[in-house]
Formats: sequence, structure tokens, C-alpha cells
Amino acid sequence: MKKDTVKIVTIGGGSSYTPELVEGFIKRYDTLPVRELWLVDIEEGREKLETVGALAQRMVKKANLPMKVILSYDRQEALKDADFVTTQMRIGRLPARVEDERIPLSHGMIGQETNGAGGMFKAFRTIPVILDIVKDMQKLCPNAWMINFTNPAGMVTEAILRYTDFKKVIGLCNVPVNMVAGIAKILGVEENRVTLELQGVNHFIFATDVFVDGSSVMDTIVEKYANVTAEDTLAMKNFISLPYSPSFIRGLHAIPCPYHNYYFFTKEQLDEELEQWKEGTVRGEVVSQVEKELFALYSHQELDVKPKQLEQRGGARYSDAACNLIQSIYNDTGDIQYVDVRNNGAISNLPHDSAVEVACRITADGPKPIATGELKCTINGYVQMMKSFERMVVEAAVTGNRDLAVTALNMNPLCPSDELANVVIDELLEAHKAYLPQFQK
Amino acid sequence: MKKDTVKIVTIGGGSSYTPELVEGFIKRYDTLPVRELWLVDIEEGREKLETVGALAQRMVKKANLPMKVILSYDRQEALKDADFVTTQMRIGRLPARVEDERIPLSHGMIGQETNGAGGMFKAFRTIPVILDIVKDMQKLCPNAWMINFTNPAGMVTEAILRYTDFKKVIGLCNVPVNMVAGIAKILGVEENRVTLELQGVNHFIFATDVFVDGSSVMDTIVEKYANVTAEDTLAMKNFISLPYSPSFIRGLHAIPCPYHNYYFFTKEQLDEELEQWKEGTVRGEVVSQVEKELFALYSHQELDVKPKQLEQRGGARYSDAACNLIQSIYNDTGDIQYVDVRNNGAISNLPHDSAVEVACRITADGPKPIATGELKCTINGYVQMMKSFERMVVEAAVTGNRDLAVTALNMNPLCPSDELANVVIDELLEAHKAYLPQFQK
Amino acid sequence: MKKDTVKIVTIGGGSSYTPELVEGFIKRYDTLPVRELWLVDIEEGREKLETVGALAQRMVKKANLPMKVILSYDRQEALKDADFVTTQMRIGRLPARVEDERIPLSHGMIGQETNGAGGMFKAFRTIPVILDIVKDMQKLCPNAWMINFTNPAGMVTEAILRYTDFKKVIGLCNVPVNMVAGIAKILGVEENRVTLELQGVNHFIFATDVFVDGSSVMDTIVEKYANVTAEDTLAMKNFISLPYSPSFIRGLHAIPCPYHNYYFFTKEQLDEELEQWKEGTVRGEVVSQVEKELFALYSHQELDVKPKQLEQRGGARYSDAACNLIQSIYNDTGDIQYVDVRNNGAISNLPHDSAVEVACRITADGPKPIATGELKCTINGYVQMMKSFERMVVEAAVTGNRDLAVTALNMNPLCPSDELANVVIDELLEAHKAYLPQFQK
Amino acid sequence: MKKDTVKIVTIGGGSSYTPELVEGFIKRYDTLPVRELWLVDIEEGREKLETVGALAQRMVKKANLPMKVILSYDRQEALKDADFVTTQMRIGRLPARVEDERIPLSHGMIGQETNGAGGMFKAFRTIPVILDIVKDMQKLCPNAWMINFTNPAGMVTEAILRYTDFKKVIGLCNVPVNMVAGIAKILGVEENRVTLELQGVNHFIFATDVFVDGSSVMDTIVEKYANVTAEDTLAMKNFISLPYSPSFIRGLHAIPCPYHNYYFFTKEQLDEELEQWKEGTVRGEVVSQVEKELFALYSHQELDVKPKQLEQRGGARYSDAACNLIQSIYNDTGDIQYVDVRNNGAISNLPHDSAVEVACRITADGPKPIATGELKCTINGYVQMMKSFERMVVEAAVTGNRDLAVTALNMNPLCPSDELANVVIDELLEAHKAYLPQFQK
Repeated sequence: MKKDTVKIVTIGGGSSYTPELVEGFIKRYDTLPVRELWLVDIEEGREKLETVGALAQRMVKKANLPMKVILSYDRQEALKDADFVTTQMRIGRLPARVEDERIPLSHGMIGQETNGAGGMFKAFRTIPVILDIVKDMQKLCPNAWMINFTNPAGMVTEAILRYTDFKKVIGLCNVPVNMVAGIAKILGVEENRVTLELQGVNHFIFATDVFVDGSSVMDTIVEKYANVTAEDTLAMKNFISLPYSPSFIRGLHAIPCPYHNYYFFTKEQLDEELEQWKEGTVRGEVVSQVEKELFALYSHQELDVKPKQLEQRGGARYSDAACNLIQSIYNDTGDIQYVDVRNNGAISNLPHDSAVEVACRITADGPKPIATGELKCTINGYVQMMKSFERMVVEAAVTGNRDLAVTALNMNPLCPSDELANVVIDELLEAHKAYLPQFQK
Repeated sequence: MKKDTVKIVTIGGGSSYTPELVEGFIKRYDTLPVRELWLVDIEEGREKLETVGALAQRMVKKANLPMKVILSYDRQEALKDADFVTTQMRIGRLPARVEDERIPLSHGMIGQETNGAGGMFKAFRTIPVILDIVKDMQKLCPNAWMINFTNPAGMVTEAILRYTDFKKVIGLCNVPVNMVAGIAKILGVEENRVTLELQGVNHFIFATDVFVDGSSVMDTIVEKYANVTAEDTLAMKNFISLPYSPSFIRGLHAIPCPYHNYYFFTKEQLDEELEQWKEGTVRGEVVSQVEKELFALYSHQELDVKPKQLEQRGGARYSDAACNLIQSIYNDTGDIQYVDVRNNGAISNLPHDSAVEVACRITADGPKPIATGELKCTINGYVQMMKSFERMVVEAAVTGNRDLAVTALNMNPLCPSDELANVVIDELLEAHKAYLPQFQK
Repeated sequence: MKKDTVKIVTIGGGSSYTPELVEGFIKRYDTLPVRELWLVDIEEGREKLETVGALAQRMVKKANLPMKVILSYDRQEALKDADFVTTQMRIGRLPARVEDERIPLSHGMIGQETNGAGGMFKAFRTIPVILDIVKDMQKLCPNAWMINFTNPAGMVTEAILRYTDFKKVIGLCNVPVNMVAGIAKILGVEENRVTLELQGVNHFIFATDVFVDGSSVMDTIVEKYANVTAEDTLAMKNFISLPYSPSFIRGLHAIPCPYHNYYFFTKEQLDEELEQWKEGTVRGEVVSQVEKELFALYSHQELDVKPKQLEQRGGARYSDAACNLIQSIYNDTGDIQYVDVRNNGAISNLPHDSAVEVACRITADGPKPIATGELKCTINGYVQMMKSFERMVVEAAVTGNRDLAVTALNMNPLCPSDELANVVIDELLEAHKAYLPQFQK
Repeated sequence: MKKDTVKIVTIGGGSSYTPELVEGFIKRYDTLPVRELWLVDIEEGREKLETVGALAQRMVKKANLPMKVILSYDRQEALKDADFVTTQMRIGRLPARVEDERIPLSHGMIGQETNGAGGMFKAFRTIPVILDIVKDMQKLCPNAWMINFTNPAGMVTEAILRYTDFKKVIGLCNVPVNMVAGIAKILGVEENRVTLELQGVNHFIFATDVFVDGSSVMDTIVEKYANVTAEDTLAMKNFISLPYSPSFIRGLHAIPCPYHNYYFFTKEQLDEELEQWKEGTVRGEVVSQVEKELFALYSHQELDVKPKQLEQRGGARYSDAACNLIQSIYNDTGDIQYVDVRNNGAISNLPHDSAVEVACRITADGPKPIATGELKCTINGYVQMMKSFERMVVEAAVTGNRDLAVTALNMNPLCPSDELANVVIDELLEAHKAYLPQFQK
């Protein structure tokens, strides 16, 4: 049943990340023989796709592999008989992200593309498109796996699980692998000896158990993390590195993920973002600049490897995580990876048909979540809140129900008031009007 | 099985509320023949108990009923063969309440005796005492019902359900009956025609369905409440009367309770309380003054009815709710009341052994909760958060685990930061040291 | 919202039971003013409908009430603006019942119209028709309640709940009211003082608590039922009256319903039915004879009351239960009745969207089930098995999947072997071919 | 954390199986360096232990490994600092098994040591002893894993999970590995390419999905098993090899385990066993004879390998399964094995704290069950029934409640009547009196 070679389609192929993905496939060619890599984008992205596509072709040529890199503006043609489809598109491109960040900040609310108001609107723009892609896949490559890295990855996965009967979707995020790395560093062991039990949803996970060589070291890591120095916290890029109080971590008896900073260090994160807002350096703006430089670099005809500078782009380990996942499915490796999948009871008091982010055994039949029981009492409230927020956002994304959007935002602790919820939503609806036909009914 | 007459014991009998309770029993004597009413208090409360007890005796005498009012400082003697035990004590009395309110406010955190830091410490002081009372009841009156109005009523009920095998406890709150009254007013119908479906926990309930004469009028009330004027909101005393945005209520499709103001109008509530903090008029301070005046009034030998001024005390309808509940159990009326009971699946995605506040059919075998299914998605997050907060607080109250207290407070949206959680908890631990032996280990 | 008068439609109006229903409406006219009673039947039933309809009209005339009895062969015309629709039709009429009973018995398997192979085929014949009626109701009287007494009432209700979005269906059975009567007799108290907590599904319920005047007398009734004499068991017509062993009842700590005889006294029930099979006196054959006599009686023009002989027909208390239910909904009485409704968590470890038979508070908004928690461990296995059987049968009834029918029957303990499951199903499929188009694809 | 060498203790070391276990450890010495193997038995078993122990020592000597085999009659001395404890004792030895089989058969009820009346009494004899062993382990080797093969392995595991706070118990059975082998044979692939998704409890499992190289081949195996020939069914020793009807398997869409023969081919299995009962060749009698011959063989001083004849003993693959499990835990291999563990939500509608038999990832922290969601509707009824039976039996084993034993047996479809349930239980209580002090209170 294992095919000799595979065809991979990357929707949003013109992304600046693509060289990392290509490097990943080249490195793994022995175990994951990619026959064709289709980079698909929309007409508006032609310039970027041609630049990054040409670089990809030079990289493959240099590696001297029988892998074809094909550029396409015809999604349906590309999808035909695909084995894996990765989705990394950004509806409205970086300017939309800048709005997602700046509009909330202009009202003193955290603006951010995966949580809160910004994440909500990224979901509103993305979900209708992803549901269309699923429809195409069901026709053209019904046995392919969709590996989605488009944020908000959890909500995108939830939308597919609840509003289609397509089952072969996996959401992917680099937060868990970064947590493994950070925890390994704190413990002073190699990353590959560390595995986690996770409970939570995308960008909102807690490590509820930590293993080294399979043995639990939870009490040790809790005590170490209770006393961690600022530079050793798990904070990723964009987060201030602030340690929690020892009592909080001990009482929690779980390790929060970087994105929890927004919720537990709201004031500090907000202060920093307001500073960036004033200076015109919110994340979307910084990234726009980085992208410009990257594409300038990519266009050098002599460049035939992934440039170092890409690593500054953020999203560290994302492409690695994606390549590892595809490789494990293809080879039925049975290793543990941390992905967004249908819960199926793995977290027994979250809905069975919702997306959760947990440790899964990766097989040729896809990720099989390890049972974790009920949400630990100390984290139950927050995780439930985020899952309910996600479900409301997904429903609003599909139905275009503005009332539900207001209610959802009110239920998110990042939203300081009902009044602001209404104001910010109206401004974002206006700013993104072109991408939100469902709200214009 | 129905006894001819009943013996009622009121722990914390020296409370200024007692005349209301006495009036309630007098009014209902025909259907609820109280043979003996024991008012129990501790030595420190002797002066208040004697004053209020004498008034109670004059009231009964005036009513010309064969009801004996007995004052006692010996709880065990009083409990013997009781049929109903009501608990309304306040450990640390009003000065402790003032600390619960002022200490958080001094750090810019909402201070309040049932939610957040204040409610947490009221739970810490109360739960060990209530567990002792339960032990006495199991020995001395194992078939009696305990009707608890001591706040935080939900956590007190939870503590008994989880840490004892006593089953006959009912928590009682005046919020639901006030919601019924407010909703009836908005609908323009008599209160007794209105019933509710509730989902939630004490001080954190939502009306998820509203019935007039048994028929659902949910769409009507949602639309009316979406457009309610400030003076018609369900806000009770201590709450600013602020209407929600129409979208929020429509998206929610449920009616929040007054205490949700703390969470959805945090800034406005905090501003008002900070004002009171500056002026020395936080609720505990106001109530201390009211109490002083009430007891002066009570001590007039000619007074033999409940004085009108008591109605200003707050806690409107509390005693009425208690008397109605006792009367319905005694007579097996089968009417609907809203109380805190063991969930038993009534809200199917909250723990079955937790306390919930829902509509119950009141029978001689106690309240039987009506099944409501899963928490409505729009309210699930917040209710789960509050229930998890309660469970952590109860565990900390029993074990004296300060770490868990810090974690619990961090998980409550009223707490602005981990740092403040630690500071406020330390100051409250110090202030209430005398009542918190469990934290001194 | 309460209407001044109501319109009731009875599908299968030509049934011999109709005079009982009519008598029920006449007796309750003061509290349930029936303006129009439509008796609907199919052309093949014209003779019976005219006979029983004329009797009904004479009964109403004698009672001198402004109630119109209208005969109709046009279901859609009849349903228009109905307030309550009762369904009591029998697809294939009594000859089909005789097949349901005789074919299984001819292979040594219990044949019976609500459980096992017979009940399965009655479901197969009835469910497609009932789903059509629901479609008509959704168009013509979307606010009407459907009260279904057609057996197997549990599976019919399940089918509507799972395969339509119609919510206003209530299944009705006379087993619970007969259990109340039997238990009251054993306890020596009046029926109206007894209420039950039930867990189970139609024809497969256990009383898990018993109350007199609202107080639990469970230990008493368990001990009495553990030692009951043969004549005092709860066995209804068609069941041998056999007492269980004292140990079984004590260990169970629940009271089984009459239909459990089939499962716990399989041999004795089978022996008796085999005897009837030989003599041509299986229930369907007896009832055919009774019906013939009843209709002869009904056709006497001077008869203007329900004849005594109808009480021999079986189905005691059925019409009373139906009239009580309608009256309680109409008047929002809030009393407890035992009906088949959407579980909604009332039995927390059965599917929330399945039909269960439990104690409900009857309101104008329909029956509200009282929460009972998880199935008691001692009965969990059997009730789960029956619910799974029902769900498989309903799915097979809708899809015409013979394989699933075979699996379902194998899973029912009344089926002695896989081989017989196949044989009996094939013979029944052949016998009822005319009524089972879904299996002919 | 991985120790250099391990100490293993085998309770019931005098079993005829021991040479297989010893062979298993010898073969795996490279990856599982056993420093000490303690064979523990009771005084009554001294003769057998000395015989088998001496053989074990000769086997190790021949293999020339630094593994010490130590015989002991002092369980507490043996347990000190153990790493793994295997339990394979038989309370009452083979004569008790013969009673478990012959007494039910004498009344026409299937007699068998793991299901029905026989299994119930084996549980009654074993559970008090195993709970004592757990107590010793908690004192003497609290970090050791208990690997239990004593039947009924599911109920023994359940008893430990529910009646102690010891968590490191794993129940082990050879049924799943035999199913893998049989299914691999039917599919025509090597065993090690096949993995299963299981749902069920010990001796009552269904394969709900089947994978070859990680890809699901469920539709293929269902169709093959629907048409399997008699000789290719999964029947193990003691079972007649009878194929199910094609419809049953297709409707079920799951593969039953061998033990389901008792429930779906009750008559055929019973007929065969009644034959054996008449001839004095029930399984216990056959095994007694085999054992006698084996021990005669074992006592030959020149024998220094596991004799071939042991493979006739039954229990094929048991010791292999045990050695594999220990080896995987010791080396944190992460492979899939099928064991009895705490459910923890893996089967989401069985109690979380019950034992289930499912596919687990084996790690140094023990088996981690893969989430399977709710029990498939087609198998839900039977699995629920068996789990409830197990829970009742375990409770009766601990409390000595005869009533509950009668109820449990009535709920098992192998029991033909309430009357026989009482008779058989009384005879077995009498026969095993010496081992059942809990029932003599």
C-alpha cells in the first residue's frame, strides 16, 4: 500500500517559508521520495511564487534528486492524485495581518494573529477558503492527507472536522516542538529523549507530564520551572520572557506554553505591543520588512540553498515539523508527534468531534491520539474557555453571524469590555470586507 | 413519614437577618409547623444573639403560635434530632469581610466576598467550620437537611459533597429568585408565572431558557434583554446597572446573572469599588453601619415585628427562599426552586459529584435537578472556569495548600497578574491568620 | 399562549381502543376542552373507522359536549393546525402481528411484538410511515405535539429523534403506570402517593428509587419485592407471574419491569408461548377474536358509552396515560409522568440524543426529564444492550440493511443462535414484504 | 533511570508454565538483563517449585548467563526491591478449577474458569490474595510493575484499580496476540505487520480496526472473515471452530475474539462441554493429567531446556507476551501491545477507572492506551454487560456479598435462569469454602 514515490502539493507555495520546506524534503529524500512538489498560489502572488519557485528548483537541482518542482496557479490541476497537501496560505497577505494587529491595539486590546480579535479575523478570512480546498480534495485526491499550518491552525482544523465529512486533516504548529526543546534544555538532556503529555488546544496547551527516555520526570521539571530564570522560560519570539511565580507553577503542576503569556502576563505583553504599535513595528510590519529582504535574496540566481536569514523569519521548526509528520505517515514510524486532530476522547471532557492538540502516535493511518483522561482540574477552566471560543469563532466564520463574533470575543479574557468587543469587530469587519463575503449578507 | 411538627436549628442565629427568617416561619406556620427554633451562636456573639433572640421571642409571642425560640451556645445540644439546620454564620464577622474587600482593592483587584480573592478567603475560613458542623449532624441528626446560606454558598456545598459522605446539604442563594423577579418585570408578567432553566454554579448562572406558564419565551426575552434600559437590567444591590450590547446578548442566547458584571464590566465595577475604598464605604463597611443601627432597633423592647429597615440590609428574598425551600421539602410540593445541589448529570459536562445551581423539583427526598444537557457552547468556557476555580479553592481550603490558592486566583479573570495573586494572598493569609490554622502547617 | 380549545388528531383512529380515548377526553373536558377530534385512517380501514367513529359521535352526543368528532381518510387535511397528534396505527394490522409472533415461535424463539424479532419487524414496518407523518406535521402543524403509542414506542421515538429535526415527539407506554399501581398495592398505599425514579428504555425499565409522598422507601420495597408472592409480582397480561429469587432483587436493588420476564424467565415464557403457538392462541390471534367481538358490539346503534368488554382488550391504562399527558401539557401542571423522550443527559451514560423512558416533569414546553446520573451498575449492562439493539434496529429500519438486522438480533439475548437469527429474519422479511420496501433495494 | 540489571519475582513460581518464562528471559538477556529471578510459592507447592526451580536453574546454567534463579517460600523477602513482579498463582490449584467447571456443567450451565460462574469463583478466590500481594509491594517494592496473568486477568486488574491506590498493575492475556496471528494468517501477511484497534474487556474484545503496515484493511478483513472457513476462524484451544454468518460479521463490522463463542455459539459449546463432563475430560481434568506428565519430565536431571510438550499445555504465547511486555517497559520501546490497563478515557463510554483491554504504546512509564472513542454501537451492549458483570463480581469478591453474586450471574447471558444462578452459586460457595473467608461472615 505504501507508494514508491509521493506527490506533494503546497497551497500558498509562494510563501517565504517554502525554501525551508524544500530543504526538508531534500534532506529526507531517502525515506520520503518526493516525485513531484507542486507549489500553488493565486495570480496576485505570481511574482513571489516565481521567485521562490525558481530558488526551489535550483535547490533540488543542486541536490541532484529526481524531484520535480512545479509551479501552478490552477489549484484543481495541482491537487489531482496528490498524496499530501500542505496549506500555508495567508488570505489578505501581510497587510491583513497588520490590520489584525494594529486595529485592536489602537483600542488597547492585544492584537495578534492567532488569539483574540486578530486570530478571530484570520479565522474568518481563512475558513471559507480552506473549506473550498477540502471540497476540491474530496473530488481530486480523496485519499490525500491535508497538513495545515495556516493559522489559527486549531480553528481551521476544527472547521474542517465539524463542517465537512473529510477526516484526513492534521493541524500543525511549532509550539510543541519548541516546548520540547526548551524543556530538554532546562533538564539538560538531548531533545530526542524528551516526550510530553499535552492537554489543550492549538496555542493553548499545557504539558501535563514530561518524560525522559519514557520515565516521568514531572516533579523535577515542575520544580525547575517553578524557579526558572527569565532567559530560560519557554517564551518564543514575540513573547517577553517572564517567569511565573514558583507557587503558580507548583499549584498548576503543568507547564504552560508560550502563548499563555498573553493570558497570564496580559499587561506586560500589551505594554510591549503598544510600544511597537506606536513605532510601527508590530509583528506584521516587521515580518513585511523581513519578507522583502528575503525575496531580494531569493532572487539571486546563484543562490541554491536555503539562506541562513530565513531562520530569523520566525516559525522556527515549522517546516521540520511538517516534513517529519509527512515522513512518519509515509513510513508508518509509530513515533510520537504533537498535532491537532479529532479528539476522539483523548481529552475525555472536551467534545469528541473537536480538534485538540495532543501527543499522537503517527501511523500510516494518521495520528492516533494517546488517551489523557479528563483535563487536569487546574487547567480545565482555561482550556474549556479557549475551546468554546474556537467553536463560536468557527461557527461565526461559516455563518457570518456578527452577534456570535461579539459574544465570542467577550468570552476571551484578552477582551477588556463588551463595548470594545463591538468597536474592534466593526473596524475589523470593515478593514477586511473584501475577504469576508459571509458577513455581508 | 411526614412529622407533625419540626425542629429547626439556625447556626449563626445572632445574625441581623434572623428576624426575617422568624417572620418567614411565622407566616408559614399553617403549612410548616415549627415546634422549636434553636438560634445557635458562639460566645463572642452573645450580645447579638440575646438581642435578636429576644426580638424573635417577642415576634412569636405576638403571633400567638406554639413555637419555642431557644437561644443556645452549645451547638451539639442544639443539633440533637433537628429536622432542618440552616447555616448563616460569618467566621471572623464583618471585620473579616472588610479585609476581604479592602486588601484586594488596595492592589487594584476587585474585592468581594463571594468571587475572586475575597470569596476565596471566605471559603478558607468557612469550610473547615462547616465540615465540623456536618460531622456533628451525622452524629446528632443524620436525617436532617442542612440548608446553607453562608457564602460562598457554591463552594461550601462543593466542599461537603466532595469531602464528606453527607448527602443532605442544599446551598441557597437569592440570585435566582431575584432573576425571576427581574425577568418577570421585563416581560410584564407576574413572578409566579415565570420559571427558568439555569446552567451554572453559584453566583455564576445563566438562564438558558425562560418559561411563562411553562411555555418557552426565550426568543422574546433575549430580544428584550438585548435592548434593555439601564434601570431594567437584572443588577442587584452592589452592582452598577449596565446593559450589555444587543449583539452580546443575542449571540449568547442566554441571560447572565448580576454577578457576571464583575467579569464583563470589570473596569466599571472596579472603578466604583475603588471609589468606595477611598471613602471607607466598601460593602462590609456600609453593612457594619447598617447592622449597628439594626441592633439598636432590635433592642427596643416594644418591637415585636420585623422592622422595615432590615430590608435595606441586602440579601433581599434570602430568608423567603429558605423558608420556601424548607416548606416545600416538608410538604413534598414538587415545585421548582433554584438551589445548589449535587450535579448528578443535570449539567452533563460538569463533574457529577460537583455542586451546580440549577432548577430542581423540590420533594420530601430533597431537590431533584432537571436535566439540562451539556453547557451551552456560548457559556461553557466561563462556567467551566468558575467550577474549576471553586474546586481548587475547596481543595486549598481543606489542605491549606498556598500554591494551589495562587494557581486558583491566577485562573480567575478578576486577577490581573500572577504577581498580584501572590501579594494579595499573602496579605489576606496574614490578615485572617487566626481563622486559617490549615495554612499554618 | 394557552389556547382556549384544542384540536386533536388520532392517526389509526379506527382502532378498537378509540372509545377509551374518547371517554378520556369526555371525562377531562373541563380542563382539556377538545374542540375537534379527528379520527384518521386508511381506506382499507374504512369499515372499522366508520363503526368506531359513529360510536364516538354517540358518546360525545350523550355527554352533551361541544366536541366535534370528524372521520377522515385524508391525513394531510386532518393534520392542519392540530395541537396534539396521537399515533396508534398498526401497519399490516393484526395479521402482521400474528406473523411477528408465530414465525419466531416456529423456530423456538420468543415471538412478541415489542421485543426481539417481532418487535424488530414491527419497527421495520412502522418507522418509515411515522417518519412520513412527521414530515406532514412539520408542514401542517409544526407546533403540535406527537404522542405516540404505536409499539415499539421506544424505537419509534428514537427514529424520530435521530432521523428528523422534529423535537415535539413523546413516546408513551402503559408499563410505568402499571408498575406504579403494582408497587402501590405491595406497599399498601394509594397509587397517587407513589412516584418512581426510572432508568431504562421502553419495555426495559427498572425502578431505581421508589417514593411515597416524596420520601424514599427503596429499602422497604426491595425487601418486600424480594419476598413477593407469585400473585403480587408486577407481571402484566401475557406474562407468567413468577417471583425472582430474594438474592437477585436484593443484589439488584431495583425493581424490574414486567417485560424483563422475557430475559430472566426466558424458558418459562417460551414454554407458555409455544403452547399457545400450538393451540393457535398466540396473543395476536386472541386479540383478533376480541376485536371482532368488540366491533360487533360497537356497531349497536344504541351503544353510547365505552363498553366494559374493552377493558379485556389489554393495554390497560394506555388511553388514560395519553389523556393525562395531553391534559398536563395543555395546563402546564408540572406533575411527574413516565414517558419516552430525548435523554438530554438524564441518564448520563446513554447517548444524549437517544430516547429513554424516565420520570419527567410535564410542562407546557413538554416533558422535562429529572436527572438520574449514570445507570446503576447492576442494570447498566442490560439497559445498554437494549439501547444498542434499538439503535441498530432503527438504523436498519431506515436503511434497509439486512446485515445490521442480523447483527442486532444476535445481540439480543432472546435470540438463541446466529443461524436462527438469519432464518427467522428471512422468513419475516418474506412475510412482511409488502410493508418493507426499504429492504427490497 | 534505566537500571543496569533487573530483579524479577514470579508469584506462583511452581507453575508448569515457568520453564517458558525462563526460556523467554534467557532469549532476551541481551536487551533485558535479569540479575535475579525469584520463584515464589506456598509451602503446599514445595514439591512442584523444587522440581520446576531446579529445571530453571539448569536452563540458565546451560545458557551460561549471570542470572540467578532463587526459590523462595517467603513472599515478603522475595519482593524486596523487585523491578517486576509476575503473578501466575492458582488459589485452590487445579482441583478448584475442576469444580469451577464441573459444578455449573452438572446443572447445564457453561463451566469455565474465566467467564460465567467458574470465572466468578476464580475471581472470588484470587482477588483477596492479589490485594494482599499489592499491599506487600507497596511496602517492599513500590516502584515495581505487577504483570498479572492470573485469570480472570481483567477482573483482577479491575480489583486492584478500584480497591487500592496502586497504579503499576498490568493485566496480560494471550488472546490478543493469538488474534493478531490468526488475522495475519487470514490476510496472508506476516504477524509483525499487523496491528489492531481493540475495544473491550479481558476475554471479551473486538478488533474494531485492523492495520497492515499501519494502513487500515478493515473492509478487507471484514469481508474475508464474513466468509472464513471453519478451520480459519480465530478459535483457540477449547473452542469449537465455528464460523459466524456473513451477515453477522458484516453488520458487526468488527472481529470477535475466541471467547465470544461462549455467547454466540452457546448451545454448541455447551454440548461439547457436557460431553467432556460426562467423560471426565473437562479442561481442568485434562490439564491435571498434562501437568502430571510435565512434572515427570521436568524432574529428569538431564533436561536443561524447555521441553516441547509444554507447548501442548495451552496458554500459547502467554510467556512470550509477558517477556515482551517487560522488555518493552525496560527499554521504553514505544511499540504497541494489547494489555489490561486503567481505561483513562481510551474507551470513552466505559468508566475511566475501570480496566479495559486495548492497544497501548508501551513506555518506561507503562502502557499508554490509544484513544478509541465510544464503543462501536454494534458491540456496545455486550461489552457494557461484561464490564458491569466484572464490576459486580469484583465488589462481591471484596465484600463477600452473596446477593450481588446472584445478581451478577443473572446478568450474564451464560446463566439460563435465576433459579440455577442460586443453586450453582451455593454449590460453588460450599466447594470452595476454604478459600472464601469473605463469604463466611
